[in-house]
Amino acid sequence: MTDQHMALGVLVHATGSHPASWLQSEAPRDASTNIDYYRKLATLAETGLMDLFFIADTPAARTEKLNVYTRYPLFMNCFEPITLLSALSGSTRHIGLGATASTSFYEPYNLARQFASLDHLSHGRAGWNVVTSANDYAARNFGLDKLPPHDRRYARAREFFDVVSKLWDTWEDDAFVGDKEQCKVFEPGKFHTTDHQGEFFTVYGGLNIKRAPQGRPVIIQAGSSEDGKSFAAETAEVVFSSDPTLEKSQRFYADLKGRMPAFGRAPEEMKILAGLSVVVGSSEAEAQDKYRELQSLIHPDVGRMRLGADLELDLTNFPLDEPIPEHLIPKTANLHQAYFNQIVSMIRDQKLTLRQLYSSYERGKVTLCGTPQQIVDHMEEWIDTRAADGFMLAFHVLPNDMTDFVAHVIPELQRRGRFRKEYSGTTLRENLGLARPANRHAQAAR
Amino acid sequence: MTDQHMALGVLVHATGSHPASWLQSEAPRDASTNIDYYRKLATLAETGLMDLFFIADTPAARTEKLNVYTRYPLFMNCFEPITLLSALSGSTRHIGLGATASTSFYEPYNLARQFASLDHLSHGRAGWNVVTSANDYAARNFGLDKLPPHDRRYARAREFFDVVSKLWDTWEDDAFVGDKEQCKVFEPGKFHTTDHQGEFFTVYGGLNIKRAPQGRPVIIQAGSSEDGKSFAAETAEVVFSSDPTLEKSQRFYADLKGRMPAFGRAPEEMKILAGLSVVVGSSEAEAQDKYRELQSLIHPDVGRMRLGADLELDLTNFPLDEPIPEHLIPKTANLHQAYFNQIVSMIRDQKLTLRQLYSSYERGKVTLCGTPQQIVDHMEEWIDTRAADGFMLAFHVLPNDMTDFVAHVIPELQRRGRFRKEYSGTTLRENLGLARPANRHAQAAR
Ligand SMILES: Cc1cc2nc3c(=O)[nH]c(=O)nc-3n(C[C@H](O)[C@H](O)[C@H](O)COP(=O)(O)O)c2cc1C
Ligand SMILES: Cc1cc2nc3c(=O)[nH]c(=O)nc-3n(C[C@H](O)[C@H](O)[C@H](O)COP(=O)(O)O)c2cc1C
Repeated sequence: MTDQHMALGVLVHATGSHPASWLQSEAPRDASTNIDYYRKLATLAETGLMDLFFIADTPAARTEKLNVYTRYPLFMNCFEPITLLSALSGSTRHIGLGATASTSFYEPYNLARQFASLDHLSHGRAGWNVVTSANDYAARNFGLDKLPPHDRRYARAREFFDVVSKLWDTWEDDAFVGDKEQCKVFEPGKFHTTDHQGEFFTVYGGLNIKRAPQGRPVIIQAGSSEDGKSFAAETAEVVFSSDPTLEKSQRFYADLKGRMPAFGRAPEEMKILAGLSVVVGSSEAEAQDKYRELQSLIHPDVGRMRLGADLELDLTNFPLDEPIPEHLIPKTANLHQAYFNQIVSMIRDQKLTLRQLYSSYERGKVTLCGTPQQIVDHMEEWIDTRAADGFMLAFHVLPNDMTDFVAHVIPELQRRGRFRKEYSGTTLRENLGLARPANRHAQAAR
Repeated sequence: MTDQHMALGVLVHATGSHPASWLQSEAPRDASTNIDYYRKLATLAETGLMDLFFIADTPAARTEKLNVYTRYPLFMNCFEPITLLSALSGSTRHIGLGATASTSFYEPYNLARQFASLDHLSHGRAGWNVVTSANDYAARNFGLDKLPPHDRRYARAREFFDVVSKLWDTWEDDAFVGDKEQCKVFEPGKFHTTDHQGEFFTVYGGLNIKRAPQGRPVIIQAGSSEDGKSFAAETAEVVFSSDPTLEKSQRFYADLKGRMPAFGRAPEEMKILAGLSVVVGSSEAEAQDKYRELQSLIHPDVGRMRLGADLELDLTNFPLDEPIPEHLIPKTANLHQAYFNQIVSMIRDQKLTLRQLYSSYERGKVTLCGTPQQIVDHMEEWIDTRAADGFMLAFHVLPNDMTDFVAHVIPELQRRGRFRKEYSGTTLRENLGLARPANRHAQAAR
């Protein structure tokens, strides 16, 4: 059974995506390592019938500028995502469980195994966001001085993915027969050794867990560089897009789907989810006030740092109420190209001061303040004009903004026939309308 | 709060430790990847007030002799342990959750993070069995032709442990203040960067999760070589011993605890758990019959292979009803030294045929067939004569043998004042009576 409605995911991090979310008086101080808190969030997302509960990740704490990171502690203190989702697999039944894991810092065998195991634990609800990572703090935890260059990271990512997907096909779907009379647990002929010798990895062996309920976890990707888009066109089933305008998103959508046929894939085999933050109000003005108040809580040190990180420019001592001179802007980005480009065009087009810039910059998403109707109008427009197949919700304040969304926006989407009224499938693939991949060794392919 | 009773752990693998357990008619065919089945086992162990629910591991499927492994599928198809225990953390409240993870095939940062995360998910119930791995199948999944030599594996293990324990002390216990008024999540001075440059690892960074509830997970070890014992004396808090007789166990116990003062440790800082399988009956004869029947189900191919693996000798075509000639026996073991020595002495002392040998060989444990009274007599003797501080139960058939143990042996232990009547602590350390380690950077140590 498949589901042809728009896809909705939610990116969850502690008290919310907003840098000042933790400062709200209701925000639990221990949210980022409180499993009961996460269980409530997952249950809420499942009440909202969402497709995907998603945990972003970077395998590092910052070791510098701690005086700033104490004001904005993203990733300084959080559950490791694979263990977190494994724990959540037992308290949810329908929602997909997706996590980021870096191809730069894992061993393919360990990653293939853990995601296959998560897929079994959740009865087919695992998703893997394939990233190459974009910070040197992570590199230093794994024996490197700094990240390898962008193209080398993607070269490794491609080979990593190749190895992992071979390992996921170790066992054919019907390999395990459990025949007690013949004393035969599995058909030896349905076990297939991976024999991979590549530039980055040499792997000879098979995965020691049977094929995942979904065949393999849903492959998620979010790169927006040339390398990233090409990799996504070849392998990704869900893509998080992060362009801030309708037009840019349409271009990205057409570009990415246009690349798929070259890899023998149909455009429907990939769902593009546009980043979206919503602030729901009974009027647009009420929602905007709520958002403005939140923005005003951003500490200037945090504003400078977040912007500086994506612009790859140290803004620590830069005056708050002046625009950033264009000649200081680096020529190219080595980290997140989409974020970088977004800031550069804001500087060029809008001539904002640093303070205005950091108060309006949205990292890879759009914030929509409005009534449920306005929000759904926007969502419909993006879907109908082929800017997205769905949305990746990054709520500013959790659980409140998600509570509002589930209570007011989901029903409006349902009323307009845009969203499911109940889960139709049991796996993440089924809910997203993605086919279960055949095992490369299975009969049909022989 | 600590607990001075004997320690009890249970080693859990699918339908049981016995190679023929899966052949029993009640055995569920999908046990090894059925999370509901594992939840029931964990609940049962918790009903029995046990200290530790333990999952062994090797990161590999066999790629050879699949015609034999289909008759004895140990580790060919199972959950990955860290994800499994994370899932179980939500359906248990008291029992410790321990898993093997190999220092030969993990990155220290990933392992430190996942176990710290598991400790948070379980509110202080994580344990890590530190192994160097002992099979070439695993090596080949990670870019090696075969395992590095024994001493090199232990050299890496030591350095691995050093890095991981530094990372676990990244944050002081009181680092996170969550002060909203001062806009300060943590005290920057209570974050400590690990700066490690060693033979095997270079790590510069800090763990991105606050200090574990237990300070660090309980450190488990089970090596019995010289290197293994020395490593255990320095670092381990729980040791699984695997000597088959009382005398050998006493010697091992005295040896190991005797090595601790050299590392500044008191003998009470380590609990030695002797491997034990029990078959409970209303009479000894009944229990023995039950066990003999199970043993008779071992397929000869499986008997040959299991014995051959630990003896490091290919017995595939060796006649079943003759003894193994002594001149064929390898001079030294490269894999599990204790198991190897055990078989060699059985061959020398008892002159058994191959069939008799594989039917009576117990890998690293003792099988006790008897009434609850007899079993408790044995356990008391081992404790009282300093052969062990507790037992690591490896039930032949799950859940049945554990059900019997919980119903009949636990009450007898309690009657004799040898086992708790309720959990006294909330963490694994507390239940085992192990102190919570101070952070090396904390005030007192400054
Ligand atoms: C919704 C969303 C979530 C993301 N999550 C992560 C993440 O968890 N970890 C990460 O390193 N990058 C994350 N990214 C960034 C991208 O995956 C990608 O690494 C980045 O854009 C750099 O790749 P590129 O140079 O190909 O654009 C995310 C991006 C988006 C839009
Ligand atoms: C109860 C018990 C559980 C064990 N679990 C594992 C395991 O999960 N994985 C593993 O590779 N070795 C396991 N071992 C083996 C030892 O950890 C150790 O690796 C082995 O004895 C070889 O080390 P040595 O050469 O120092 O004796 C276990 C041993 C015992 C007694």
